[in-house]
Amino acid sequence: MNNFEFHNPVKIFFGKGQLDKLAGLIPAGSKVLMLYGGGSIKKNGVYDGVKTALKDYQLFEFRGIEPNPHYETAMKAVALIKAENINFLLAVGGGSVIDATKFIASAALYTEGDPWDMLAKYKPSKGALPFGAVLTLPATGSEMNAGAVITREETGEKLAFGTPFTFPQFSVLLPDAAATLPKRQVANGVVDAFMHVMEQYSTYPANAPLQDRFAESILQTLIEEGPKAYANPADYDAMSNLMWCATMALNGLIGKGVPQDWAVHMMGHELTAKFGIDHARTLAIIAPSHYTFNLAAKKDKLAQYGERVWGITAGTQEEKARKAIGKTVDFFHSLGIDTQLSKYTNAFEGTAQLVAKRFTERGWTGMGERKQLQPADVEKIVEMSY
Amino acid sequence: MNNFEFHNPVKIFFGKGQLDKLAGLIPAGSKVLMLYGGGSIKKNGVYDGVKTALKDYQLFEFRGIEPNPHYETAMKAVALIKAENINFLLAVGGGSVIDATKFIASAALYTEGDPWDMLAKYKPSKGALPFGAVLTLPATGSEMNAGAVITREETGEKLAFGTPFTFPQFSVLLPDAAATLPKRQVANGVVDAFMHVMEQYSTYPANAPLQDRFAESILQTLIEEGPKAYANPADYDAMSNLMWCATMALNGLIGKGVPQDWAVHMMGHELTAKFGIDHARTLAIIAPSHYTFNLAAKKDKLAQYGERVWGITAGTQEEKARKAIGKTVDFFHSLGIDTQLSKYTNAFEGTAQLVAKRFTERGWTGMGERKQLQPADVEKIVEMSY
Repeated sequence: MNNFEFHNPVKIFFGKGQLDKLAGLIPAGSKVLMLYGGGSIKKNGVYDGVKTALKDYQLFEFRGIEPNPHYETAMKAVALIKAENINFLLAVGGGSVIDATKFIASAALYTEGDPWDMLAKYKPSKGALPFGAVLTLPATGSEMNAGAVITREETGEKLAFGTPFTFPQFSVLLPDAAATLPKRQVANGVVDAFMHVMEQYSTYPANAPLQDRFAESILQTLIEEGPKAYANPADYDAMSNLMWCATMALNGLIGKGVPQDWAVHMMGHELTAKFGIDHARTLAIIAPSHYTFNLAAKKDKLAQYGERVWGITAGTQEEKARKAIGKTVDFFHSLGIDTQLSKYTNAFEGTAQLVAKRFTERGWTGMGERKQLQPADVEKIVEMSY
Repeated sequence: MNNFEFHNPVKIFFGKGQLDKLAGLIPAGSKVLMLYGGGSIKKNGVYDGVKTALKDYQLFEFRGIEPNPHYETAMKAVALIKAENINFLLAVGGGSVIDATKFIASAALYTEGDPWDMLAKYKPSKGALPFGAVLTLPATGSEMNAGAVITREETGEKLAFGTPFTFPQFSVLLPDAAATLPKRQVANGVVDAFMHVMEQYSTYPANAPLQDRFAESILQTLIEEGPKAYANPADYDAMSNLMWCATMALNGLIGKGVPQDWAVHMMGHELTAKFGIDHARTLAIIAPSHYTFNLAAKKDKLAQYGERVWGITAGTQEEKARKAIGKTVDFFHSLGIDTQLSKYTNAFEGTAQLVAKRFTERGWTGMGERKQLQPADVEKIVEMSY
């Protein structure tokens, strides 16, 4: 096991009726900005629930945070915060709203130029407004981590960001609010959580058996409960289990003391930036090619994954690894998620070169768990995913 | 899954060379009290390491915290803290030192009479001095939770205690400091962690498959790594894995959203209080009888445990459950830990009646995950454990 540091101070409130706790979690007298997306929270009752819970606060609203939230949208919220002297933010919705809120909370206190520099130029964040989250959609894990991904529409860039200040103070997880989700979003949530685990697991053995088993536990539970939640989002038990899996997949725990990869995400973000493909689906497109291309480096962990998660017993390590990749593809397909870029766009030619060029321009060399991947390798992986 | 709240703000620093981080974790200018046990930290280098790391602080020492730490000893530390205006505590050692430090940190700020009332009369704690921990012994999980167990020598009582203020601010986990542990203590640590998991797992199914699998992951890893660490405490990999298992076994995570039991601990504490038997060994004495006595209530989870952790495939649910209990006993024996009270004392007659009487006096009725156990049942369970 490698040395590690772990710290996750987020207070979690999980289950039914948890909105009642909201008022106790936000300092009395706060000027609160509720941030949300396209209005689904008005259909599932959460909007009204939050308004009722916060009736004693001065409550402002910011509507319209899009999937793969935009810098441009976030900066409008920052302007509102400054104009109204808002001092507490409440993200209500899925991971995009929470991600945007993390950026907004930081940007509101950023005084040294364009807050985008925190992402594009790795300029340090020196603080953030306090914020909490109400989660209505299991997927990203943003409710229990300090990271965010923001897209700049103007340049088509999608970049990650995280600071010690951007842990939510609390997150209220509402599986019943997910009962009315479109099946497409449930499928995306399952695959997103699944791939978060895989990025922290499909590397090389590091003698960290508990971390391995925790990762496999999440994968097994996603395989078991994900299809139930996909078939019937109103299945409270299945949705609860999916939601807790998604949170645990990316709250930092399973990645401690082990190597991590994240190259699938970096390539996937480019597909979203270019084509607007749902984040989870970009991961499903890239992952099979990535694992196949890196089979020599990853085959021991992929074989272990095949054995323990998919029950594959026959064959060499390499054969087990290849079968495990096939099982993964089948699983994604069973959720209605295609795993080839050409199923999403006819304009895929040249994408591999574009992604490799962008990585080169950003100086992103040596990616992957052994820093083994160069832009030329990225080009091959993306091309394999057509 | 049941509703739950989860919050664990402890910062963890795990691995080699982590003492270098200590100075950055304690506010400059603090008057620090280092608390420790019988002096093993002087042999394994940790005492010197802490002194070096904190050379710029005004550092006081309190030595002599015993296993199953005593209220009487703790109150001596409280007197020193008050006399010297100490404002930061650092527990260095195993769970007993950390438990004692939690009580001391609270007692130092308790102004409404005898701090023992926080345990015996459930009087609320209104705060605690800030404290951190340096862990040298994998066992109790105290390094990442807010709970403690304190023994009052005068009355032979051993009671649990916990407050929102008694999370360590940080814990530095040092697997290499455990290299010189006596094998007896390693065995105790494995069984202690194992039983912490079992108390949160061996109840009834609650449709919480991720929590189940996380619990099973810890049990499997303890079964795999525990014997290696027991055979050779200097096996850094095995000790690291054991240490992380012990932390994860009782940091609150696996027990969220599921029923919990803890009756084994409550009975076990009485055996320590009366006979001075090591805490872990009292759990090994009580657990088999407890599970056998409560087989009807617990058989589904015990059968699942048998299947997934021990690979038991044949038989009815009840047969699998009984075999799983047998496997557990064999595992404890393999670590040199006896599972019958009569192996520890000849004076066992009357113990069951004494324990039942104490529980009756304290009004401890309705224990266990379904509040099904009365003192009369406790008497039978303890008697079965002779």
